[in-house]
Amino acid sequence: MFVCENLSVNKKGHLTIGGVDAIDIANEYGTPLYVMDIYVVRKNCERLASIVNKYYGNNALLCFASKSFCCKKIYNIMQQENMGVDTVSIGEMYTAIKAGFPSKKVYFHGNSKTEDELEYALENKIGRVVVDNITELNSLNYIAKKKGVVADILLRLKPGVDAHVHKYVTTGSVNSKFGFDIANGEAMEAVKKAMELENVNLLGIHCHIGSQIFEVEPFLLAAEIMMDFIKDVKIKTQNELLELNLGGGFGVRYLQTDKSFDIDCCIKSVCELVKSKASDYGLSLPFLIFEPGRYIVAQAGVTLYTVGCRKEIDKDIKYVSVNGGMTDNPRYILYGSLYEATLANKASEEKLEKVSIAGKCCESGDLLGEGVLLQRAEKGDILAMFATGAYNYSMSSNYNRNLIPAVLFIENGNCSLAVKRQTLEDLIRNDV
Amino acid sequence: MFVCENLSVNKKGHLTIGGVDAIDIANEYGTPLYVMDIYVVRKNCERLASIVNKYYGNNALLCFASKSFCCKKIYNIMQQENMGVDTVSIGEMYTAIKAGFPSKKVYFHGNSKTEDELEYALENKIGRVVVDNITELNSLNYIAKKKGVVADILLRLKPGVDAHVHKYVTTGSVNSKFGFDIANGEAMEAVKKAMELENVNLLGIHCHIGSQIFEVEPFLLAAEIMMDFIKDVKIKTQNELLELNLGGGFGVRYLQTDKSFDIDCCIKSVCELVKSKASDYGLSLPFLIFEPGRYIVAQAGVTLYTVGCRKEIDKDIKYVSVNGGMTDNPRYILYGSLYEATLANKASEEKLEKVSIAGKCCESGDLLGEGVLLQRAEKGDILAMFATGAYNYSMSSNYNRNLIPAVLFIENGNCSLAVKRQTLEDLIRNDV
Repeated sequence: MFVCENLSVNKKGHLTIGGVDAIDIANEYGTPLYVMDIYVVRKNCERLASIVNKYYGNNALLCFASKSFCCKKIYNIMQQENMGVDTVSIGEMYTAIKAGFPSKKVYFHGNSKTEDELEYALENKIGRVVVDNITELNSLNYIAKKKGVVADILLRLKPGVDAHVHKYVTTGSVNSKFGFDIANGEAMEAVKKAMELENVNLLGIHCHIGSQIFEVEPFLLAAEIMMDFIKDVKIKTQNELLELNLGGGFGVRYLQTDKSFDIDCCIKSVCELVKSKASDYGLSLPFLIFEPGRYIVAQAGVTLYTVGCRKEIDKDIKYVSVNGGMTDNPRYILYGSLYEATLANKASEEKLEKVSIAGKCCESGDLLGEGVLLQRAEKGDILAMFATGAYNYSMSSNYNRNLIPAVLFIENGNCSLAVKRQTLEDLIRNDV
Repeated sequence: MFVCENLSVNKKGHLTIGGVDAIDIANEYGTPLYVMDIYVVRKNCERLASIVNKYYGNNALLCFASKSFCCKKIYNIMQQENMGVDTVSIGEMYTAIKAGFPSKKVYFHGNSKTEDELEYALENKIGRVVVDNITELNSLNYIAKKKGVVADILLRLKPGVDAHVHKYVTTGSVNSKFGFDIANGEAMEAVKKAMELENVNLLGIHCHIGSQIFEVEPFLLAAEIMMDFIKDVKIKTQNELLELNLGGGFGVRYLQTDKSFDIDCCIKSVCELVKSKASDYGLSLPFLIFEPGRYIVAQAGVTLYTVGCRKEIDKDIKYVSVNGGMTDNPRYILYGSLYEATLANKASEEKLEKVSIAGKCCESGDLLGEGVLLQRAEKGDILAMFATGAYNYSMSSNYNRNLIPAVLFIENGNCSLAVKRQTLEDLIRNDV
């Protein structure tokens, strides 16, 4: 009935999220509201951990890609789940540290890290800096030297794998802005350079081939290229790289018609390939890292909106306007990303019409979807949009000076705010 | 040499903005930094005011569309320039009021206004509520009745004009989410309904046919349809609508190769048409309103970034990475909008290469442009991107937990912060 787990309809005909009546939530906390079902978050973490453990043992780490959803409380959850975290800015590192997350399990990524960020990473003993380019490598070495420390690093490589997805979410191909190219020798040069520098300690390599990948093949291909590279490094430098970070990109279902991604098969195949290559090449088994973000949180999220009005242009075009929009979920206007929705107070009624969900921004493109199947909506209905846990709150903005909604965590039938609703005062806090 | 006015190159070979050395600014205020040349803002206001006055006299009002750039200080500027303002949320109304802007000159727009917003507008005696749909009309009347007040309103109409621009910025066609359709009789029904209701006072009509329009024709067509509608209203109701708000949408040049928009000719033609129709139809000359946003602020803005590194993929693909990106300017990833740039510290050097400007977000699509002509960039250079005054700061976000830059106003050679740079503490202010 729903694309996400742990949703149901109660006797009142109301949607329930993690067992809690969505209408009660909307009444108590207001809308728009991001709701995160922590049961689903933990289940996804535990499922991945169990799969990795089954096929690779404990010489591995799962890092939550916190750019998909970042606030202090999610780092607490990740710490409880024994996850590492992937961060991409001083802001994410800062949030993790303020949440008490162990900095040694923080990886710091980015194609354009600033010197302030590198200094912050070293001062806070961030576990790994994943170095993107030679300029950064030299800067990091220089800063580490000044501070009298040695930075543990990985190098971000381009395996040249094209995961055949939307152009904006493919990051492993050679034309990407990210990382060192393996094919043209740039990556090997970077390895040699890193090994020469005194204040960086090269531990391994990283790649990330894209997002929303539903096939096993690209992951296998990338893993093979990375293992071949580790072999080449050993041949050319007599040093063995002991960490292999294969990034994230596992496909997530947003619609019930979306294909499923066989995560067990994917991780199994990758683990077997890594083990087999290590054995073939006489290498130690590398410490293996995956960085799922969307996979952990997307399906845990439901956004609740209040319907403002319905507007029938003709029999084919009907708008249902809500009190949020591209400011809380810019993924439809950015990528045309589709979501399913229901009217939480009419969840037991049949969905009989297809509508465009109009956001409240003064911008024609501010839609949350077109052709969305829905019960007949009227002013005051509560619209629930599913699988909004990833890249919604994290991409939110104050465009049109709309306020950023609160984030509510639900676990074991209990609700607690993870992020308070922005206030009008917040909007002008930095205005002079 | 530059697409924007009031830019130059000094003896040091540095870019100057409003006469101030951009490198000095970057050193003092840091980067990324939004710089607004208030001379250009005022000049644009005064130019428009003078044109409207020349062709229509003083029975008119220019309203700054503050969604294009909103902070307290810009409302002070608009007040000094005798402008009204167009707002689209409680947040914009609140900012205007906190800046001391006279609420009677505030217009409140939006296709999905919440009841809280309508209450706020009435409590703060906002000049006009521009009503979008029947549900809102009834709500507003109900709320006004409860409060014992009468709300001055316009109705937002769809003249059905297609301004032939990017699908996301066309808002006047009949399929738009905005307003009442004239052609199918919906608009006339709304007029009659508004006239019946006791707590709304229908003063006139509004339309907005799109953005970045470079032709006069669509504006003329819209004005004609609106005047015809006013005539029909008089025939059918014996009442005359005395306000005609034609919205904004005046084209702005982002590139030197962009065509120019003849604003004088456009406003002249529209004013003459309105006068001629009024005379033909025996109507009073309506109070005429235009709502320019982008036209006022786009060319006043320059964003300064620090270059992180250059990365040459091959002879055709070169990346220059900066310490900002889609979080401070999402217009390239959203619409493919193009900007010109220069290296502010090498502004007198010839631009010899075309590069992609890579933002710092962990997202392949995070580019600020491709094929941008630039001097040879190296780490530490200051990159200035032009004509970023509209829809950059206002659309900024904390994606990747990047910080929102400060906004610096320059006027008469003096610099003053209009918006302070966000801090790390701001990021977790609402985190529980």
